[in-house]
Amino acid sequence: MVETSHPGNIGAAARAMKTMCLYDLGLVLPKQFPDPVAFARASGAADILENARQFNTLADAVADCQNVVGITARNRKLSAPVVTPKELMQQMLYGSQEIQVAWVFGRERNGLSNEEIDLCSTVCTIPSNSDYGSLNIAAAVQILCYEWHVAQLNMQHEASRKSASQGKALAPVAEREGFYEHLWQALDKIEFLDKDNPTPLMRKMRRLFDRSQMSSADINILRGILKNFLKQ
Amino acid sequence: MVETSHPGNIGAAARAMKTMCLYDLGLVLPKQFPDPVAFARASGAADILENARQFNTLADAVADCQNVVGITARNRKLSAPVVTPKELMQQMLYGSQEIQVAWVFGRERNGLSNEEIDLCSTVCTIPSNSDYGSLNIAAAVQILCYEWHVAQLNMQHEASRKSASQGKALAPVAEREGFYEHLWQALDKIEFLDKDNPTPLMRKMRRLFDRSQMSSADINILRGILKNFLKQ
Repeated sequence: MVETSHPGNIGAAARAMKTMCLYDLGLVLPKQFPDPVAFARASGAADILENARQFNTLADAVADCQNVVGITARNRKLSAPVVTPKELMQQMLYGSQEIQVAWVFGRERNGLSNEEIDLCSTVCTIPSNSDYGSLNIAAAVQILCYEWHVAQLNMQHEASRKSASQGKALAPVAEREGFYEHLWQALDKIEFLDKDNPTPLMRKMRRLFDRSQMSSADINILRGILKNFLKQ
Repeated sequence: MVETSHPGNIGAAARAMKTMCLYDLGLVLPKQFPDPVAFARASGAADILENARQFNTLADAVADCQNVVGITARNRKLSAPVVTPKELMQQMLYGSQEIQVAWVFGRERNGLSNEEIDLCSTVCTIPSNSDYGSLNIAAAVQILCYEWHVAQLNMQHEASRKSASQGKALAPVAEREGFYEHLWQALDKIEFLDKDNPTPLMRKMRRLFDRSQMSSADINILRGILKNFLKQ
């Protein structure tokens, strides 16, 4: 958080972070900190305030980070790519896990300076009312932390769901290949495959059937059809 | 908001609402309202505070609503179905548009009473840290309002994307039906369709091919195959 004016916002941000399992708070020249108002608003997240690191410049604060994300209100003219919080979390979760990421929140009144934005490799803007997009800084922290937490939960669900059920639903590759071999024989019998260049049609057929996510049962039916046909 | 203790939280909730294009705030027996602290925290959302309606009971506040959603911390034993904010927005957006929905936020210290929960047809819990899930009430309002705004934006995007491109990709129903007719003829020729009960197989085939989202070009190829086969 860069040059935060109100200690209450620092406390509220700490609480927002802790509710979503984020703990590492950096403060660049806070106007008033430590402060009892910050601790009151932090409620049960005093530990985050106690462990908060303070810096004299944003450059110092993000020195050990490989990805610096500026959180800005919209309608700024920026050269960096602008993403939504959901897009940001996808990048973070499905990108390299070894990267240190900093989210940079600007001043209550006037956000981040152009020089500070220049330090950012990504800019993230929270979708909001075009007539009144002025989110409280701690509310913005809450949304980002929430999206991070939800994205992580989703990734965990997805991973366990995949390992539990996908094997059952989708036919194994060997069965799919067996079906395609059978299909080529049938197409050959009716002289539908171009002998000199069968690949384009075969590729189209593969794409079409692969999209339908065939189960083993589906393949059994299809091969039954092909078998009956080839007997004729 | 039910019996909110701190006027600052009412102001912060009003600001959170307005940033996400929600405007209708109801207050059940607020401890201290109207109050200058509420207006200070509302920032540019004073209009929402000025128009806020006050009630003596939650039942009065939600009297004109068809869907009442209690926002609660987790780990309560509840009979009502519990959804996440994202699930709630899907229900709201893809359910009937004519329904008045109330989101009910409880007291800062002890949330909603069991009697108040009984008034709710749905319960929504914000995913959070299992060791410290204590979101500030205005922060919870911010998350719900944000999810609503984002869900609406997504629905709009989806609608415009669909109308722009889907027509091109998916074959029209009449072409799909033509293909299926052709397929039944072929299956009939090889005596693969059970004359007494052809429907189960036909239904399976429809599901399989529908899942593959056939384009007109796909259907032309498939019908070419069937035509060659039927000529034999």
